[in-house]
Amino acid sequence: MPQGKPTTVPADGLTTRQRRRRPILAVHTGPGKGKSTAAFGLALRAWNAGWPIGVFQFVKSAKWRVGEEDALTALGEYHAQTGKGAPVTWHKMGEGWSWIQRPGTEADHARDAAEGWEQIKRDLAAESYGLYVLDEFTYPMKWGWVDVDDVVETLGNRPGSQHVVITGRNAHPSLLSAADLVTEMTKVKHPMDAGQKGQKGIEW
Amino acid sequence: MPQGKPTTVPADGLTTRQRRRRPILAVHTGPGKGKSTAAFGLALRAWNAGWPIGVFQFVKSAKWRVGEEDALTALGEYHAQTGKGAPVTWHKMGEGWSWIQRPGTEADHARDAAEGWEQIKRDLAAESYGLYVLDEFTYPMKWGWVDVDDVVETLGNRPGSQHVVITGRNAHPSLLSAADLVTEMTKVKHPMDAGQKGQKGIEW
Repeated sequence: MPQGKPTTVPADGLTTRQRRRRPILAVHTGPGKGKSTAAFGLALRAWNAGWPIGVFQFVKSAKWRVGEEDALTALGEYHAQTGKGAPVTWHKMGEGWSWIQRPGTEADHARDAAEGWEQIKRDLAAESYGLYVLDEFTYPMKWGWVDVDDVVETLGNRPGSQHVVITGRNAHPSLLSAADLVTEMTKVKHPMDAGQKGQKGIEW
Repeated sequence: MPQGKPTTVPADGLTTRQRRRRPILAVHTGPGKGKSTAAFGLALRAWNAGWPIGVFQFVKSAKWRVGEEDALTALGEYHAQTGKGAPVTWHKMGEGWSWIQRPGTEADHARDAAEGWEQIKRDLAAESYGLYVLDEFTYPMKWGWVDVDDVVETLGNRPGSQHVVITGRNAHPSLLSAADLVTEMTKVKHPMDAGQKGQKGIEW
């Protein structure tokens, strides 16, 4: 990705330096692969920039330990040992539930998601992290477990320099409207179409 | 990303286990962001799976040290210290050149890219890595510096279990045809459209 030049310079009274540092709200949506992986790739850049990283996983099974978790946790340990990079904190919303294998009732899931969002609000108010990865966070909004207007308002008013990336299909139009950066991942071809099974190291 | 079920089971004589382990050729293309970041996110999964990772950067300036490089290099050091994860090797093709700031002549760039591809061929033959990230590798093919037919044939005949992900815009149709997994990243909204400058930790 080249550094690039803005196509327009807004009359917002900000200096280039201020504009450069303006925190980003990014959304990775669409039916293709790469939404979460690109968010975790972004976390590598944030780590290198020395920004504390908070990951909030909304719908992956807690039993399903994704590779990114071990790798980013290792980067957090590396930071603790060497001082390079940044700390990494990994939150799993409602440990033990998942939209894939649903133990618990829907009310349980809704409560877990709502509690997860309340934790994020507390962290935003406290400026706990430089980058928030809200992985698969579109789904609790889609299902009405978390109020999208509350999300848009809270993110719009977040203090300081806190970057946020939200992943998941079917992002709400209000969220897209509020976002600075929206990328849609489109599936062109997928090995499962040809009968291939998912595999460790690629799919998780 | 759910593990999912194949929509069809091919009559290829492979067992499920064999089919699960079949190495993937993935292409991340399109004009949107996230092509490289998703590839580096995939590298986190590969690292956690214990697959040695070889990154080959084709067009980023060697002067422009991307955050992913420091973070993945740190994961390689962590592996060396703890035995967890996997080693990471980072190659920059033609150190010091870039398609953004072009020192050297086009003939220099073409030669560097061709030499880079020869190195990849040697590594594929030696089964040096479990995951190859060929970052921005579509461009040398587009510009005729690397022969796309040679790439497709070499990758099609690669031995063992070596996964490959290629990033960049304008992927050649022959490459897309050969790929198992193709994702197109589409720009829906970008902060540079609103006059925002790129920033460390987000763009690089």
